[in-house]
Amino acid sequence: MVNQRVAVVGASGYGGLQTLRLLKEHPSFQVSFLAGERSAGRSWSEICPFLPLEGDRVVEAADPERIAATSDFAVLSLPNGLASKLVPPLLERGVRVVDLSADYRYKSLDQWSSVYVQEARSSARTDHDLCREAIYGLPEWHQQDIADARLVAAPGCFPTASLLPLLPFLKQGLIESDGLIIDAKTGTSGGGRAAKEHLLLAEASESIAPYGVIGHRHTSEIEQLASNVAGCPIQLQFTPHLVPMVRGLLSTVYARLRDPGLTAEDCTTVLQTVYQAHPCVEVLPVGTYPATKWAKHTNRAMLSVQVDTRTGRLVLMSAVDNLLKGQAGQGVQCLNLMAGLKPTEGLPLTPFYP
Amino acid sequence: MVNQRVAVVGASGYGGLQTLRLLKEHPSFQVSFLAGERSAGRSWSEICPFLPLEGDRVVEAADPERIAATSDFAVLSLPNGLASKLVPPLLERGVRVVDLSADYRYKSLDQWSSVYVQEARSSARTDHDLCREAIYGLPEWHQQDIADARLVAAPGCFPTASLLPLLPFLKQGLIESDGLIIDAKTGTSGGGRAAKEHLLLAEASESIAPYGVIGHRHTSEIEQLASNVAGCPIQLQFTPHLVPMVRGLLSTVYARLRDPGLTAEDCTTVLQTVYQAHPCVEVLPVGTYPATKWAKHTNRAMLSVQVDTRTGRLVLMSAVDNLLKGQAGQGVQCLNLMAGLKPTEGLPLTPFYP
Amino acid sequence: MVNQRVAVVGASGYGGLQTLRLLKEHPSFQVSFLAGERSAGRSWSEICPFLPLEGDRVVEAADPERIAATSDFAVLSLPNGLASKLVPPLLERGVRVVDLSADYRYKSLDQWSSVYVQEARSSARTDHDLCREAIYGLPEWHQQDIADARLVAAPGCFPTASLLPLLPFLKQGLIESDGLIIDAKTGTSGGGRAAKEHLLLAEASESIAPYGVIGHRHTSEIEQLASNVAGCPIQLQFTPHLVPMVRGLLSTVYARLRDPGLTAEDCTTVLQTVYQAHPCVEVLPVGTYPATKWAKHTNRAMLSVQVDTRTGRLVLMSAVDNLLKGQAGQGVQCLNLMAGLKPTEGLPLTPFYP
Amino acid sequence: MVNQRVAVVGASGYGGLQTLRLLKEHPSFQVSFLAGERSAGRSWSEICPFLPLEGDRVVEAADPERIAATSDFAVLSLPNGLASKLVPPLLERGVRVVDLSADYRYKSLDQWSSVYVQEARSSARTDHDLCREAIYGLPEWHQQDIADARLVAAPGCFPTASLLPLLPFLKQGLIESDGLIIDAKTGTSGGGRAAKEHLLLAEASESIAPYGVIGHRHTSEIEQLASNVAGCPIQLQFTPHLVPMVRGLLSTVYARLRDPGLTAEDCTTVLQTVYQAHPCVEVLPVGTYPATKWAKHTNRAMLSVQVDTRTGRLVLMSAVDNLLKGQAGQGVQCLNLMAGLKPTEGLPLTPFYP
Repeated sequence: MVNQRVAVVGASGYGGLQTLRLLKEHPSFQVSFLAGERSAGRSWSEICPFLPLEGDRVVEAADPERIAATSDFAVLSLPNGLASKLVPPLLERGVRVVDLSADYRYKSLDQWSSVYVQEARSSARTDHDLCREAIYGLPEWHQQDIADARLVAAPGCFPTASLLPLLPFLKQGLIESDGLIIDAKTGTSGGGRAAKEHLLLAEASESIAPYGVIGHRHTSEIEQLASNVAGCPIQLQFTPHLVPMVRGLLSTVYARLRDPGLTAEDCTTVLQTVYQAHPCVEVLPVGTYPATKWAKHTNRAMLSVQVDTRTGRLVLMSAVDNLLKGQAGQGVQCLNLMAGLKPTEGLPLTPFYP
Repeated sequence: MVNQRVAVVGASGYGGLQTLRLLKEHPSFQVSFLAGERSAGRSWSEICPFLPLEGDRVVEAADPERIAATSDFAVLSLPNGLASKLVPPLLERGVRVVDLSADYRYKSLDQWSSVYVQEARSSARTDHDLCREAIYGLPEWHQQDIADARLVAAPGCFPTASLLPLLPFLKQGLIESDGLIIDAKTGTSGGGRAAKEHLLLAEASESIAPYGVIGHRHTSEIEQLASNVAGCPIQLQFTPHLVPMVRGLLSTVYARLRDPGLTAEDCTTVLQTVYQAHPCVEVLPVGTYPATKWAKHTNRAMLSVQVDTRTGRLVLMSAVDNLLKGQAGQGVQCLNLMAGLKPTEGLPLTPFYP
Repeated sequence: MVNQRVAVVGASGYGGLQTLRLLKEHPSFQVSFLAGERSAGRSWSEICPFLPLEGDRVVEAADPERIAATSDFAVLSLPNGLASKLVPPLLERGVRVVDLSADYRYKSLDQWSSVYVQEARSSARTDHDLCREAIYGLPEWHQQDIADARLVAAPGCFPTASLLPLLPFLKQGLIESDGLIIDAKTGTSGGGRAAKEHLLLAEASESIAPYGVIGHRHTSEIEQLASNVAGCPIQLQFTPHLVPMVRGLLSTVYARLRDPGLTAEDCTTVLQTVYQAHPCVEVLPVGTYPATKWAKHTNRAMLSVQVDTRTGRLVLMSAVDNLLKGQAGQGVQCLNLMAGLKPTEGLPLTPFYP
Repeated sequence: MVNQRVAVVGASGYGGLQTLRLLKEHPSFQVSFLAGERSAGRSWSEICPFLPLEGDRVVEAADPERIAATSDFAVLSLPNGLASKLVPPLLERGVRVVDLSADYRYKSLDQWSSVYVQEARSSARTDHDLCREAIYGLPEWHQQDIADARLVAAPGCFPTASLLPLLPFLKQGLIESDGLIIDAKTGTSGGGRAAKEHLLLAEASESIAPYGVIGHRHTSEIEQLASNVAGCPIQLQFTPHLVPMVRGLLSTVYARLRDPGLTAEDCTTVLQTVYQAHPCVEVLPVGTYPATKWAKHTNRAMLSVQVDTRTGRLVLMSAVDNLLKGQAGQGVQCLNLMAGLKPTEGLPLTPFYP
């Protein structure tokens, strides 16, 4: 069978790099086009001597005509606000798109504009229809819709890690829908590859700090899907922290049980039942708590749940690799579904420990 | 003036090392006796070539007679359950003690025995009176009692970081006393210097993980003082996480405001008012969140508070150096008070950034 | 075709873990037996929840009968001195062995005994013949011998990284054979998984230090093969350093050119010519220097060479993943050759950057 | 006594920050003026909430008139090429200067221009006289000259660490002056605070790599002083490596002994004799090798020497904190001498281990 052809746009950022790394060894896709802004015109081997691609190529500008002429799919890894320039012409030309940015994660363009204020101002978007059409690319919850989609918005890293353990309990009404608290921790690669002072090793190493304490953009993204699944509006507390490590993301979620009689075993069974057919989610036994190292370099989320009978609370823990299941790996998982492949095709599920 | 004489027991562990480091440059104390278990009989310069002490000494066994003959004070940095063997004979001989272990942190020996089950079994303690007598060494809240004490139990690292921002709000009744959640993050030196597999660099680096998710021992320690200050029994959720860094501890505390009209500015004023006379606590302006790096190698806690008007919640953040304000530095702060010195004498308050 | 069966002995150490990780996804091998000392009797999923093996198994004691009954090959990852107990009974029973320890790296048992003094004393070895028979498992230099061997001694991490760039120049007589200096740097996983104080994150992080400055055991191992290839006895300077990272090893080698007219381009060509048929060695273009991150999680060595015309010296740089090309990956590479497979079968060659 | 007044120019970079940190707690200096480029016009407390200065100040532009009106001394921490604009007007106005850049480290402006080519082009310097006048600020070797100087050029971090162990042996003719090899390793703060991709935690963490392999600028700086002290021209091999840690620098120096009979004890005595009166240099006993952690946050260099009788070589090891003894600490040490204080005044000499 001929491999399907995928364009990678924004190749030298972390999202692009991870996508290329996965596609390079993918049995059913081939990288058909490389585009980038900073890197346009340069040869790939010069930019990334550590990730050789067959037949060394030149990075090109992101021209929709050229992409459509060479590719069946496009994965976009661009700064927020830029994907929405490229998506309409790509879809018109029949290229199916997985977008790793936040541009199509909200059903409502107005909500996007209220959350991504600066980007909205400079991009002047009007693609309300595409926002409504785009599928939120969380494969464990939207598998069939993704398979049929022209346009998939891959979820943010924090929403992915936080929603996977939370949604089953919201859906089944096992927890109170208010008072949810998500305390999340991410490695610094989540901040991208563009050089910023606070992400320097000298600054970020040997330190942990909260940021975006009220109103981090992922709050509303999490609330949107949580509300949909719960069937009622949800407002929750979300606090991200920057952790001195390259990759990995841990979400610790606190919720109040509706039925205080539920045990950790019961709750573990809830998760296991929901995710037993989903190979990219692993539910750990009671008392085994996930380290992000266990999920590193894999497209797997590792979940655990504990119950405090004293306080009637549930503690959900969820570890992912922020650049794989939290970003590019999930993008390829969506691509697999769109191409009619099994979701794990070409995706690593086993870590190199330590 | 002649310097006061301090014995350091458990010298080669992290608590002991930090205490020695501080006393070595302290203007009013001198190290009069060095004791250790693993290191007894060895010369100090051989154990710690990087921390020379004047007139190289030999580490001795922890003999109460020898300690009393040489020292006015003793700082004990021993595994839980062992300090309680040494404290009674020291007090009898007139040596005033700062204990860095958990042995005297509970007013009730029975409670200690129910939390430190294994240690209780092997130590067979009966010193109920000393438990009642010991002062919980949080200087910002028990300053005068510490000054007068024979026996001070220096608080745990998590309780220190968590209680400092929390107590003012509990005392003034500004937050609901139930539903408190403490999500805490610590560097690996908190696990001590004895070699354990999970604290190896190869294991702990490039990873973050929760541990002791329900029933970590510091939970009850925090609850004891929180209940006292609030004037009602408090049960809270406490989840520690292991962070890939040497030192530093961050506590993120979530509470519900009684009066939803309170702003972050109001709450910052609450903290500033309580701590304005306390140089080891710094309250940051609204919107500035503490990085543990800012507190590293200092005896200062850096606090910040934010309010989410959507959810009616308070988010308290507190960063300390787990080995200084979270352990040995606080011990020396107590020692200063006991010796009639100002609390910050000989204590570093400025970090070496980065 | 039926997969060939491999026993892994010493499963829960880093060498064993990596071997299992590789074999788990290997298309032509299956793990047929799991043995370990510390972990015997425990179920694998409990020991390593992050590395599930099909049909959860129990770790067994290293019984030669059981291994021979279940396995065609055995990979031994044991402390020095222990493999030599197990190898003779395994070979007698027809099991072909890849040993990751140093026990069979020297042609002369006497030399081994003089280098591994303590191990020699407690193991009282007499297997001179096996020492002579064993093949030094550096596949790029002993490919055919490895393919035919009953017993392969996988090289140490430092020798692997140092010899790969050095041997071509020694063999061709392009450098002087005296005055060689190897300044090497390794991540802490090279020290193994058994807990040791100096490998704690709190100790090893934020620090670099030399160790074993004169007489590190790998010196003689490097000299043995270097002398063989050069055809004259070589004595060199080897200094390892401990670097605050989990995995990765860099060797910087200094040598004096015999012909001062050779350029960096010439020397790069030398390396490229020798290694062009060897997919586990990549020679970088002149001026591109290898970061260990480029080799991480791969079985590839990345080499670079520079020439200082002022001093007439060659600077060779070589980066490997110390646990893969430096240990278990090379072991599997040897296993591939022994089983008649191509050397890279089942071996990762592309890093997950960053 | 009234404190002497020091202007700090380039306050928010790492050199400036460290200088401020030291001066803030210095008993005999006060910070009289704060200047910076990026930060001019902003209040200090906003830029650095973790390093409060008394009476919050505004960072100003580096105006020589203002500096001369407020300050006796100036410490310049500016990019190469910029100090030379500011130094002449400051000296004219009677301000004595410690410059942390490379602008005055060479006696010959022509040599500086040939090494710092780009900076030379854009700065068009003509201050040959000042180059000749400036004192190279290595206090252990130029103590009296520094005390009398108007202009001190603080050495680079690599030269400081490398020269301290090397010079005694060169001066006494104990080693051959050719064939010297310096393999050096530095933490990433050595690259400064301006954001660069390769210094991001995500890039630099979990990796070690050589850089500037031939022709790093510090080569000629080391050679200049080494040649002077040896009394003959020296050309050496210098290879720096980037290590995944914030601060710390280790230099491993290889040299051939002229007299192969010298022992490690002899060579240690050589170092001890030279440095016994110099409290910022500590010579370790034979067999104790320095970890950079032992020097971290101190102004002390820790030296060790080993001899390989097989090869007739000396291995010198030298650990410093690259931002203190390797930069700002050494700057303050010079300032102390210029102000008639003892060299260690206000300088930390004891690390906070771990």
